[in-house]
Amino acid sequence: MFKMIILLVKKAGMDDQEFATYFMGVHAILAKKMPGLTKYVVNIVQKPPSREPDFHGVAELWFEDRASMKKAFTSPEGEATQRDTKEFTSKVLTLFADEHEIN
Amino acid sequence: MFKMIILLVKKAGMDDQEFATYFMGVHAILAKKMPGLTKYVVNIVQKPPSREPDFHGVAELWFEDRASMKKAFTSPEGEATQRDTKEFTSKVLTLFADEHEIN
Repeated sequence: MFKMIILLVKKAGMDDQEFATYFMGVHAILAKKMPGLTKYVVNIVQKPPSREPDFHGVAELWFEDRASMKKAFTSPEGEATQRDTKEFTSKVLTLFADEHEIN
Repeated sequence: MFKMIILLVKKAGMDDQEFATYFMGVHAILAKKMPGLTKYVVNIVQKPPSREPDFHGVAELWFEDRASMKKAFTSPEGEATQRDTKEFTSKVLTLFADEHEIN
């Protein structure tokens, strides 16, 4: 299994509610259509009481392997998803990871 | 359910293998002992070919609620876990999040 962790900073001028509504209501629906995406989790970051968080959202995407991920992101659905990212973010940081559940 | 996402930068001078070995083999075992921790995932970031990643590890911790998380981190096991974090990291960034699996 191949996991991507994407850290997102909201677009300047957007409030937290607008960001969450767009991410969950528009972007996630586009992203979910990507072929080969086996699991998709959206994390909406809670605003700390005293300061702005470093990131406002974290997306987690699972694919069978790296080749499936590449295929997904170069598909029409993947390209539409990437274009849409600009609509609600000002910075995006992508990590590829090996996931281990600790039992 | 209350989710923490902790972004970690490895300690200066540690190589990727040392970081992963310490995180999985020492730190995760301490962290897993925290009372009230219902699920614990360790993500080891894969090094991109051309540059240093922004973070080397991502921990995900689930608790029943915020009060359980606070209790866990102020327990002796939580304090030991936090002390140990300094042994293998140079920067730690903590996010609290609402998690949504998109189906």
